[in-house]
Amino acid sequence: MTKTNPGRFFEDYAVGDVITHAVPRTISGGERAMYHALYPARGALYSSDEFARACGLPASPVDDLITFHTVFGKTVPDVSLNAVANLGYADGRWLAPVYPGDTLTSISEVIGVKQNSNGKSGVVWVRTTGRNQHGQDVLSYVRWVMVRKRGDGAAPEAIIPELPKAVAATDLVVPAGLSFDNYDFALAGEPHRLQDYTVGEIIDHVDGVTIEEAEHMLATRLWQNTAKVHFDATNREDGKRLIYGGHVISLARALSFNGLANAQMIVALNGGAHANPCFAGDTVRAWSEVLEIEQTDAPGVGAIRLRLVATKGEAGHLRDENGKYLPDVLLDLDYWALMPV
Amino acid sequence: MTKTNPGRFFEDYAVGDVITHAVPRTISGGERAMYHALYPARGALYSSDEFARACGLPASPVDDLITFHTVFGKTVPDVSLNAVANLGYADGRWLAPVYPGDTLTSISEVIGVKQNSNGKSGVVWVRTTGRNQHGQDVLSYVRWVMVRKRGDGAAPEAIIPELPKAVAATDLVVPAGLSFDNYDFALAGEPHRLQDYTVGEIIDHVDGVTIEEAEHMLATRLWQNTAKVHFDATNREDGKRLIYGGHVISLARALSFNGLANAQMIVALNGGAHANPCFAGDTVRAWSEVLEIEQTDAPGVGAIRLRLVATKGEAGHLRDENGKYLPDVLLDLDYWALMPV
Amino acid sequence: MTKTNPGRFFEDYAVGDVITHAVPRTISGGERAMYHALYPARGALYSSDEFARACGLPASPVDDLITFHTVFGKTVPDVSLNAVANLGYADGRWLAPVYPGDTLTSISEVIGVKQNSNGKSGVVWVRTTGRNQHGQDVLSYVRWVMVRKRGDGAAPEAIIPELPKAVAATDLVVPAGLSFDNYDFALAGEPHRLQDYTVGEIIDHVDGVTIEEAEHMLATRLWQNTAKVHFDATNREDGKRLIYGGHVISLARALSFNGLANAQMIVALNGGAHANPCFAGDTVRAWSEVLEIEQTDAPGVGAIRLRLVATKGEAGHLRDENGKYLPDVLLDLDYWALMPV
Repeated sequence: MTKTNPGRFFEDYAVGDVITHAVPRTISGGERAMYHALYPARGALYSSDEFARACGLPASPVDDLITFHTVFGKTVPDVSLNAVANLGYADGRWLAPVYPGDTLTSISEVIGVKQNSNGKSGVVWVRTTGRNQHGQDVLSYVRWVMVRKRGDGAAPEAIIPELPKAVAATDLVVPAGLSFDNYDFALAGEPHRLQDYTVGEIIDHVDGVTIEEAEHMLATRLWQNTAKVHFDATNREDGKRLIYGGHVISLARALSFNGLANAQMIVALNGGAHANPCFAGDTVRAWSEVLEIEQTDAPGVGAIRLRLVATKGEAGHLRDENGKYLPDVLLDLDYWALMPV
Repeated sequence: MTKTNPGRFFEDYAVGDVITHAVPRTISGGERAMYHALYPARGALYSSDEFARACGLPASPVDDLITFHTVFGKTVPDVSLNAVANLGYADGRWLAPVYPGDTLTSISEVIGVKQNSNGKSGVVWVRTTGRNQHGQDVLSYVRWVMVRKRGDGAAPEAIIPELPKAVAATDLVVPAGLSFDNYDFALAGEPHRLQDYTVGEIIDHVDGVTIEEAEHMLATRLWQNTAKVHFDATNREDGKRLIYGGHVISLARALSFNGLANAQMIVALNGGAHANPCFAGDTVRAWSEVLEIEQTDAPGVGAIRLRLVATKGEAGHLRDENGKYLPDVLLDLDYWALMPV
Repeated sequence: MTKTNPGRFFEDYAVGDVITHAVPRTISGGERAMYHALYPARGALYSSDEFARACGLPASPVDDLITFHTVFGKTVPDVSLNAVANLGYADGRWLAPVYPGDTLTSISEVIGVKQNSNGKSGVVWVRTTGRNQHGQDVLSYVRWVMVRKRGDGAAPEAIIPELPKAVAATDLVVPAGLSFDNYDFALAGEPHRLQDYTVGEIIDHVDGVTIEEAEHMLATRLWQNTAKVHFDATNREDGKRLIYGGHVISLARALSFNGLANAQMIVALNGGAHANPCFAGDTVRAWSEVLEIEQTDAPGVGAIRLRLVATKGEAGHLRDENGKYLPDVLLDLDYWALMPV
């Protein structure tokens, strides 16, 4: 019997299956410092205990994307080891902030399967939930991937989950106690409130970062995501290491500080596409488009829905005339963030 | 209205203006660990809680240069975004140690302006103060930079601050409680006391470190210094990323352990010049010259004033016959440190 | 008098000498986070406070190799600065787990010397002990190195210590309170118990990691190991930086998770050889051979003795027909780990 993990194939997923993912993880100030070293992250709420307390939180939580990457990383050995492609995200919601000292685990439920017409692979939908040491859910999202079949058996009944195009503003979970009534715009870095943004507005975040191999590998390992494509230069014919898509997400989000400094907390992931692969040496820029503007019940707290695009090209350029992503585009992400009104 | 920060131009500074810099930062053990990974730092006081307690401190503070970089990094978007050159430092004093858990903010006061004769730029002097969550000042220093003008308006009245050539030994602030009476030289790594050094002595720190792109970018981001010249390989015609001068300061200071292991705490920054740019691939060495030796009122605590030079060339070589820095010289820093007598 | 450390030569070691190594170090969650960023480490006991508590420990200790590297790093300036070769390890035992907040110091006793027949160098054996702030020993191991002579004086009496080929299973120290009775195999990542392994079994850990210069330097500095061969590209004629052998140990150990996820704690180092040098750009893989299987007195806790091989080549290939390590082999390590029965 081989002792190593061969990964799951399409046949190994049945709707209703629940997978407990391995390796719980306690987060500390160390992960936060690493995050600040890896990305140009400057969100005040994630940088300062004092700023977070002034916003009604007990301390500065770790970046919402630390939560995402930690929860996501655990799913890789069970969900994406034999994946041909990461097809999409939907209906993601952050349900509680994560603080240094918290321990996270992940479970996934299979919610959809559909064999491809070629009979060699299929699409699997899973809802992944991250949970802290109190048994409290901190994050829940749907991901679907294309997975190789092991053999040539019959196709299972196709079950395709219904997924919202975007999380409704009324379904957003604002962290308990959060208030932006005493929000300090000078310390946060920009004066722009929710009402200063308009739907359809494009924001060029200006700055670019050239990625190094060491950086994306440090990041990806930090989330205990050990997919070999990210680490092994002998794995592809061209000798390139594919950069974990989450590295590009975090980089683009951090770059978006310049113009969106007050888009403080990510509360929902509506969708996302890793439009083209990213490699070391690429210089990544970012731009955002304002998609929706909403209020919440929390004092002074509004919600802004944003398209965040990571690109090697120009701001505002996304697709060609056929609707295909331009070759320079790396990421097209749709998310909700909280912003002072 | 553009949402992104265009940076300030020369016209935007008036003597007396006070700028509250954005993004307060809570420091943790994570920043300390990163610092030890980025630099060959071995100062015992900054490595061990036990050693620090034996010296009368409540715990091991973070490296004084973590404080400097954190405070400095916050000023970049307001002071150096349109800067043509970082011209100098003066009258810097560390006023209180920073411990994991502390939150730092920075403010700067404009203390001098002088338009250049070309009418296209000017020099701005600012005094920057770092402060902890108790409202206590932890660091104060003067920096002056050359900044582009936005337009071609009239020159403001030139005001040039008077700055000391060096902080007087009597003005040095020794941390409350510090005592070197029970200083353990074996654990600190070298037997040399203050009286073992002589003014004019040159110390070659021997070791060299070849710098990688990933390292200086991790470091610079850690201080939330997001000046694009450090990160964007498309920013310069030669495709090089300019290394943050503070990275060279920290590297040289860490290398100086070998010969100055007991120069434990930096208490003053008298001056400094980034003599030549530093790029990845450079192998950096360091040497020091003893400039002054003084006593303090604290038990067993002396003060040593040092010139610290980072270079790609030979120890002891600094300027050519015309007084110009040799092309191999990267940094010429003048500082005070505390040392057991 | 030169202020810098010239290192010790063969003549400077006499059997019975005790060397107090410099620079005590307080470990925090930061070092743990860095370790997870540097290596694909996924051992649940070292990742989660909750998992560790379920195994009877007060919290998640830092990886045993963090302890090893921290203790080892301190010995470099005193033991290996003028070393020609690191010849071997023996009789290493971990004696107590190390937790964030602990402060480590190292001392070494010289236990053997033997001049080489060429009269230009000799072999020195030292027993190094790591100790925490409570004066409790956390690690003890023997290392021997070949060291240059300073001069051409007479040879000392040769004293060669008797060293066990392997630590006896009965001498292994199981951390107080450790129990695997409630071990959660799903969270740990693999179902294999001690009895699922057989002596002689070879496990190919499958995954490969291509090493970058920035990574091994970050790692090596983190342990305050400042041997210049690791950092200075001008130090060797070929411009290469030799990678610290401990980096390869940690990388191979982390890779061995895939097949040995339940080999949780390293409790003994029986021997080890850095078979060939490792350089940036090398893609490192790992395989293990089961050498012994034993029980311990602790509830549910067994012990597995493993050969861990890091290689650029194929799993299972170790030596040529003359018994010489194959050129692809980087590391041959013999250790004991604890595993649920």
